[in-house]
Amino acid sequence: MHEQTKAVVLLSGGLDSATALAIAREQGLACHALSIDYGQRHRSELDAACRVASSVGAASHRIIKMDLGTIGGSALTDAHIAVPEVPTTGIPVTYVPARNTLLLALALGQAEVIGAARIVIGVNALDYSGYPDCRPEFIAAFQQLADLATKAGVEGHGPQINAPLIDLSKADIIRRGNQLGVDYSLTVSCYQADAQGRACGLCDSCRIRAAGFNAAGLPDPTRYR
Amino acid sequence: MHEQTKAVVLLSGGLDSATALAIAREQGLACHALSIDYGQRHRSELDAACRVASSVGAASHRIIKMDLGTIGGSALTDAHIAVPEVPTTGIPVTYVPARNTLLLALALGQAEVIGAARIVIGVNALDYSGYPDCRPEFIAAFQQLADLATKAGVEGHGPQINAPLIDLSKADIIRRGNQLGVDYSLTVSCYQADAQGRACGLCDSCRIRAAGFNAAGLPDPTRYR
Repeated sequence: MHEQTKAVVLLSGGLDSATALAIAREQGLACHALSIDYGQRHRSELDAACRVASSVGAASHRIIKMDLGTIGGSALTDAHIAVPEVPTTGIPVTYVPARNTLLLALALGQAEVIGAARIVIGVNALDYSGYPDCRPEFIAAFQQLADLATKAGVEGHGPQINAPLIDLSKADIIRRGNQLGVDYSLTVSCYQADAQGRACGLCDSCRIRAAGFNAAGLPDPTRYR
Repeated sequence: MHEQTKAVVLLSGGLDSATALAIAREQGLACHALSIDYGQRHRSELDAACRVASSVGAASHRIIKMDLGTIGGSALTDAHIAVPEVPTTGIPVTYVPARNTLLLALALGQAEVIGAARIVIGVNALDYSGYPDCRPEFIAAFQQLADLATKAGVEGHGPQINAPLIDLSKADIIRRGNQLGVDYSLTVSCYQADAQGRACGLCDSCRIRAAGFNAAGLPDPTRYR
């Protein structure tokens, strides 16, 4: 029997990474989900990640603890910085410094240990506008790094970094996930969800998510408080 | 008064990073030391990092917790893999998957938050032979990533990654640090030092360190158990 190609799939518990996981599953990859407990405010996101991993059929799911509160500088990791409840311009205060570099670095380590040929990350075009580490050129630079950073890199190739959502709009992502049977009621996008995973409906992430379901013409299963 | 340029200096508590910190201090940088508690066996390394930061004159010192035991795959983070006490060939089991990628990613986040223009890492030519993420091409690839990954990266430049020891032999490093007044009795290199920081004298790191002092013609202040 042919052994499935292994992938490490970064899974936040939000809508995007749930869809990226479903796409990787559809491609026939054995998906090892990886979530990071980085001291985020919205910890119910991690509960959501567990439900999503199970529902979409991940081969395994690990949660790594990393205390980014020590670094600070983001509304998501520093309790002293408020999550904005009105639209803002420029790079938002919810940006976590070097977050995707860190997430991909952890995935790279995990990929090396389990022998995964792929790393899947759910960055997308909408984030692109605000976060520097969601741009296609950032992913390309990380690919170059991954080709050098590991034992496999000694021979000049590392795991392939896949960002299947990078060119999609939020509505496209939701349509794609819907076709693949993703249960979005399990996901939590809100930056300040309560312990039950109920959304505020006011933060950037809530607004982008609601607009996405609206544009996709699909019912929004988000639970609000 | 001219404000000093800030640097984030990765500080393990070992001989190399202590020397890199002293070099950065001599260059007039305001050095913000960053150590990672990544579940390493040799935790007395972190105590050593605190002593070194204070002795060399770091402007601040932060320790970030990150549980790499979850990833496993290394004798330094997995209690089930023994530290070799005889020389081995190839990439050693003490290699921590993606470690320097992770350390640099954390330093990048910290640099962004405090506005540091430099990141200093004490990788060197000796490590180069064994660890893929100590090679000059790895550092160059991380520089490219850093130029894209952060808020500064939106304008096409990130903090400068400095690896001042990359071309030096262990003996050269020790001579340089000695000139700069580094107190190597404060540092711990052993992969399995005891709680008091006393070295085993048998692991790779102990052997490389002892040979370095020998080649430098300087007394070795290492405390053995």
